[in-house]
Amino acid sequence: MNQEVYPEPLQKLINFYKKLPGIGEKNAERMALATYNLDDEELTKMSETLTGLKEKLVNCSICGQLSATDICPICQDENRDHNLICIVEDYKSVFSFEKVGNYKGTYHVLNGLISPIDNIGPENINISSLVKRVEKLAKPELILALKSTVEGETTTLYIKKIFEKKDITISRLSYGIPMGAEIDYLDIITLDKALEDRKKISE
Amino acid sequence: MNQEVYPEPLQKLINFYKKLPGIGEKNAERMALATYNLDDEELTKMSETLTGLKEKLVNCSICGQLSATDICPICQDENRDHNLICIVEDYKSVFSFEKVGNYKGTYHVLNGLISPIDNIGPENINISSLVKRVEKLAKPELILALKSTVEGETTTLYIKKIFEKKDITISRLSYGIPMGAEIDYLDIITLDKALEDRKKISE
Repeated sequence: MNQEVYPEPLQKLINFYKKLPGIGEKNAERMALATYNLDDEELTKMSETLTGLKEKLVNCSICGQLSATDICPICQDENRDHNLICIVEDYKSVFSFEKVGNYKGTYHVLNGLISPIDNIGPENINISSLVKRVEKLAKPELILALKSTVEGETTTLYIKKIFEKKDITISRLSYGIPMGAEIDYLDIITLDKALEDRKKISE
Repeated sequence: MNQEVYPEPLQKLINFYKKLPGIGEKNAERMALATYNLDDEELTKMSETLTGLKEKLVNCSICGQLSATDICPICQDENRDHNLICIVEDYKSVFSFEKVGNYKGTYHVLNGLISPIDNIGPENINISSLVKRVEKLAKPELILALKSTVEGETTTLYIKKIFEKKDITISRLSYGIPMGAEIDYLDIITLDKALEDRKKISE
């Protein structure tokens, strides 16, 4: 392929888009051409958003969630149950729960999981801030919403151990079959967990 | 869905990405989060590229192609055959030919096609500049590379009519079956054209 097919500004757009997940060469090219066709106003707005993007977002000083304000809107919201804390691995999980929109408690973003193999211990993730936070609550309840990998399980067990002596209600998300999934397509571990976590439906 | 799931800067990124072709809500969200994770340097570079993007690119004063310089690199290239002009609808076509990399002539970008139904006549597309350009050439040869729609065919016929009296070699791209395509999946018009444009392979 010819090296200098695109004028430099378009090539720069293509290079940028290719760095994003799921965007290949062909898509990046189409996106770059479409970008050129956007209004000046759109381009200026996007340019401004990208300038100093990292400084525009901070970690909420209470829960650690990515936020445009020092305390995130969730931690500021008086209609939320601040005794209920859903513990998640990263900020993406918070966005996922918020999109569902049914959860009315707060979050705590660990920003990682305990992983001895990667030299990540409890001190490297936001656990101490969680402990301090829980100490101030009258009737804390914790929900562990970590993924079911070795690291997720290790972190779940570690946090459970810290708090179980303190007579705090702790739960974890249920494991089971995803909605609409065909039983015979499921991996055996998920199926085994679904059996283990089965719910009684008879009286 | 909760309206304020994402902090404002992320939501702005999502809104921008959704304007690009083939990018839905879910993809735009993933791309916005990935953008946040890029280096500061990358973000600054992209921001600068977007600022005044439209002014950074001009139409080549010879062929009309999108270019970062007043005369595009192709029209400047002395190793190209400047008597050979491939006439295309828009700048995207030039990029496509250049990616193939085998064509060693120049281009002329019409920036549209004749379309009486949309009130686009020959005077609305870059035909007069083509006429002037051809007049200056010693031995011009034209290749019409327009799509096979009513507008493409009309434009091809119009340009053919202008130049045929002047004893100029004019050709058009061949119609036919795309490489690797299954015959029984092809539309009847393409198949008909492929039959009409058949090439003799026996002596």
